[in-house]
Amino acid sequence: MNLPQPIRKLADHLADLPSIGPRQALRLVFYFLSQGKNEMNELARSIDDLSGLKLCSNCFFVHQNQGGLCDICGDKNRRKDLIAIIEKETDLLSIESTRKFHGRYFILGPIPKTGVLEDWQKLRVQVLKAFIKNEISQQAEEIILAFSPTSNGDFNSSLLIKELSPFTKKITRLGRGLPTGGEIEFADDETLGEALAKRS
Amino acid sequence: MNLPQPIRKLADHLADLPSIGPRQALRLVFYFLSQGKNEMNELARSIDDLSGLKLCSNCFFVHQNQGGLCDICGDKNRRKDLIAIIEKETDLLSIESTRKFHGRYFILGPIPKTGVLEDWQKLRVQVLKAFIKNEISQQAEEIILAFSPTSNGDFNSSLLIKELSPFTKKITRLGRGLPTGGEIEFADDETLGEALAKRS
Repeated sequence: MNLPQPIRKLADHLADLPSIGPRQALRLVFYFLSQGKNEMNELARSIDDLSGLKLCSNCFFVHQNQGGLCDICGDKNRRKDLIAIIEKETDLLSIESTRKFHGRYFILGPIPKTGVLEDWQKLRVQVLKAFIKNEISQQAEEIILAFSPTSNGDFNSSLLIKELSPFTKKITRLGRGLPTGGEIEFADDETLGEALAKRS
Repeated sequence: MNLPQPIRKLADHLADLPSIGPRQALRLVFYFLSQGKNEMNELARSIDDLSGLKLCSNCFFVHQNQGGLCDICGDKNRRKDLIAIIEKETDLLSIESTRKFHGRYFILGPIPKTGVLEDWQKLRVQVLKAFIKNEISQQAEEIILAFSPTSNGDFNSSLLIKELSPFTKKITRLGRGLPTGGEIEFADDETLGEALAKRS
């Protein structure tokens, strides 16, 4: 069936987004149409408004503050010498919502499946090293490699541990074991093995 | 955590869309950000472009043709006197892709849970009646109520049957029974019951 070109174009665009398939994309397009012009214009404007945001010069999280720093890096009550390296912005939000971390973040970007960091990620690591050198007298107290416990995350952690160990007194990873509320019966072997090894 | 306002605004907007939850909405916003300005502007423009589309004056499907009719209603090879009443545009696409229907469509819009049609839907029904009166000499050959086989769809069908029966020689609904490839073992009682009743 030959759909009008604006519909096909937007549906193709939406289907390229993460976790949106071609069917949901079409459903969304028809939903937009059912919402009328004003709603559509407002959504388009909201997307355009994103382009006014800036990246924090320390941690690369988004912000719209006057200076170059995001809210977290600009907060003097947060420790400078405790840094969690994370893959993505939503990981920052997840960790923040635990209210158990009072250090800074550093967004490395999604770790490529190849195991080798992209050039822009290598540049970011240089920024991190410079920050540690200039702002916290050569060494951080602790760097947490807060990656998901996948084989990809494991592999990259080992690379980063080598690269960053001169810059910190301690490098840690997130704890491994049974998730709270999880039942032993349904835990996979890896998880249960880790839970045994990390018993305390 | 206090997110910049443009992020919150767009995330709220996206979370209002059908089958997108607040977490996926945030993930999408950060994805847009990672795509850079050009991509964002293009997506915004694609959404804006939708507002140039028109609704078919017969069936209310979208089109961008010169006249008032969509591709299907403008196609002289399709039967005028066989009309499938459907809830949404994507249902039209699903039926078209079977290539087994050569009549026209009529989009009624999603049937409200209250069971009572909205005012704009009542107006559409008037348009359908006028079309039948003026263009196919008082009576259609067949009207198919192509609604999903839910209790809501059933209830509305019975109302529409009453309202439309003076305007058509026959009113039908889509066949009920086992889906192709479905196993009897996993069919629910309703479906299996229908399959028994409609055996042929």
